[in-house]
Amino acid sequence: MVLIQNLHFLGRQAINSLAVFQHFCKNKKTRLRYVGIMVLGSGMAVYSATKHKAHMAKKVIDTSTFMAEPISNVSKLSENSNDMKTKMELLIMRIQAEFCRALEAEEDEETKFIVDRWERKEGGGGITCVMQDGRIFEKAGVNVSVVEGHLPPGAVQQMRARGKVLQEGPLPFFAAGVSSVIHPRNPMVPTIHFNYRYFEIQNADGTKQWWFGGGTDLLNEEDSKHFHHTLKKACDKHDKKYYQQFKTWCDDYFFIKHRGERRGVGGIFFDDLDTPSQEKVFKFVTSCADAVIPSYIPLVKKHKDDAYGYHERQWQLLRRGRYVEFNLIYDRGTKFGLYTPGARFESILMSLPLNARWEYMHSPSPESKEWKLLEVLKNPKDWV
Amino acid sequence: MVLIQNLHFLGRQAINSLAVFQHFCKNKKTRLRYVGIMVLGSGMAVYSATKHKAHMAKKVIDTSTFMAEPISNVSKLSENSNDMKTKMELLIMRIQAEFCRALEAEEDEETKFIVDRWERKEGGGGITCVMQDGRIFEKAGVNVSVVEGHLPPGAVQQMRARGKVLQEGPLPFFAAGVSSVIHPRNPMVPTIHFNYRYFEIQNADGTKQWWFGGGTDLLNEEDSKHFHHTLKKACDKHDKKYYQQFKTWCDDYFFIKHRGERRGVGGIFFDDLDTPSQEKVFKFVTSCADAVIPSYIPLVKKHKDDAYGYHERQWQLLRRGRYVEFNLIYDRGTKFGLYTPGARFESILMSLPLNARWEYMHSPSPESKEWKLLEVLKNPKDWV
Repeated sequence: MVLIQNLHFLGRQAINSLAVFQHFCKNKKTRLRYVGIMVLGSGMAVYSATKHKAHMAKKVIDTSTFMAEPISNVSKLSENSNDMKTKMELLIMRIQAEFCRALEAEEDEETKFIVDRWERKEGGGGITCVMQDGRIFEKAGVNVSVVEGHLPPGAVQQMRARGKVLQEGPLPFFAAGVSSVIHPRNPMVPTIHFNYRYFEIQNADGTKQWWFGGGTDLLNEEDSKHFHHTLKKACDKHDKKYYQQFKTWCDDYFFIKHRGERRGVGGIFFDDLDTPSQEKVFKFVTSCADAVIPSYIPLVKKHKDDAYGYHERQWQLLRRGRYVEFNLIYDRGTKFGLYTPGARFESILMSLPLNARWEYMHSPSPESKEWKLLEVLKNPKDWV
Repeated sequence: MVLIQNLHFLGRQAINSLAVFQHFCKNKKTRLRYVGIMVLGSGMAVYSATKHKAHMAKKVIDTSTFMAEPISNVSKLSENSNDMKTKMELLIMRIQAEFCRALEAEEDEETKFIVDRWERKEGGGGITCVMQDGRIFEKAGVNVSVVEGHLPPGAVQQMRARGKVLQEGPLPFFAAGVSSVIHPRNPMVPTIHFNYRYFEIQNADGTKQWWFGGGTDLLNEEDSKHFHHTLKKACDKHDKKYYQQFKTWCDDYFFIKHRGERRGVGGIFFDDLDTPSQEKVFKFVTSCADAVIPSYIPLVKKHKDDAYGYHERQWQLLRRGRYVEFNLIYDRGTKFGLYTPGARFESILMSLPLNARWEYMHSPSPESKEWKLLEVLKNPKDWV
């Protein structure tokens, strides 16, 4: 059950320099939004030309709503519009943009995502969108990455350990994924994480192995029912067994072993999904990714102006500490990414909260709301 | 260069229930200090009897200044006063108590260490002293542990990987150590970590392997010279080569690989030290442990009332985030401990700060104090 969750692990720090300027600029308010649009300017002429070319190709690809230009050349995408690599790249670009816009719509007018488009020397790159220190979102990150190259030995070892049959010798691979973690400021608004990814490995004989992985999970208990129901609905459209199977997998995966508790109230999680067909799994993954907004945004709307006190804030910070523990100790994607030379650690660690807390021997009062949540984290329950 | 830093890893959560009561009691002020003394009451009668017995044995052991009763029975310690196991246990008990008292002396009158004495089902136990949310110290932990049993397979593997020749079959071991991390509230007061430990492994043929390990390191730059000078003085008494050798080892060990920076300005670090003789290494370790107070407490006194602003506090929290990264991702002692079933994770994770912070793409302004510190963390310099 190895997870390569952060595909950015392979990315070198080759960020658009204007995007970096944008970040360092202290007055990162409304005006910067426009600077942000100009940022892409360096590639604008190319973009127009590309778009023109795209018109002549089989399929016109509209990238105007994306957070930045796709990682792959648009004309290449147009020419290969039926390739799963293209479909997945366009899906994650769309999901990233829609989710970022949906989050921005809940925020104050002047708080927008900053967009870092980075390229990887060895092939591919990513687009990291971060909104930090907003009134509603303390830290929100939505990443896409599209990378290709040869599998590092560590990845090969991990994949074999979970049962993949991989040939000896260099293994060309392609990976595309979107991943996101949202840490709201108000403790009554739950923290969400999701990640959907597609992997392809080229065997020496020219054949291919491919699979999808991913999941969406929530960290607080409030409104778990709505959340799980929405995910179940997305799953049920494809296979009635999926929800229960992937809900259990999620409870098993996001487990903080040393504490004997899960990091949150779960959701769905799956990996190595390669049946019944590529097209069908892609449709399932599309449904899951499309379920993120309806599963989560209503919870933001509902709770973003809830009253809360010192007590709730401290508990939220402690739970964020637990989240950091899971991500840095157990999450194999994060660990694997950080161990990889040349990793773009800023995109991997973007998922960490702005603030976290650790108290020695903290334990909520019996029968309190926090105590009840801990019971659920120790003994997962059914929500649907 | 494997480090088993947190010996508490093997401890089961078998804490003195009164000490726990003490912890949960909200009004943990001066009065609790006396409750704290009474806490040991459950063993008081036994203690007096033991002390009486000790009088009749070869050597009288005075435990009255310790934070709690030693882990090993006092009469057993008295009868084996020349055994290195006894010497090390008494050293770490003394170092813990002296350091706790020295820290308490810098704090407000009502802020004292809470003392959790825990026992391990498989043999041994520990004493965890924590001071939390004080005016001077945001979180201060000083742990001792004395454990014995059979080496878990993971430990055997780690030790072999760093070159230890270990026989096949079950390996009885003994380990005793003190470890401490102090996170002061005022960002001008540096964070310190130290750990000194003694290991013994019994071979199948009855022979023994033993070694010492440990180190002291500082996280901020201010006053690094005083700190390193004090450590050098302690080292020089034993071997003129030690300081330079162990200073370099420290810079190499506390390295956050993915960031290409050290977690702090270093100090000394060593492991597997088993020459020139057990007695000589013990004396060296004693000097190092005795150097903690003179290397650190003057820095607390000097800076604890320094003025600071929002900027300094934010930088301190970010550095604490880096510290969390090192401890949870790279520190093999912490990781090994947490992977061990039945670990007393509260004693291992006691080292984590009360508060920590992660900002996406944070970078200090060029030529600022923070920027200069980062340069040192990337390229360690000589302090003496």
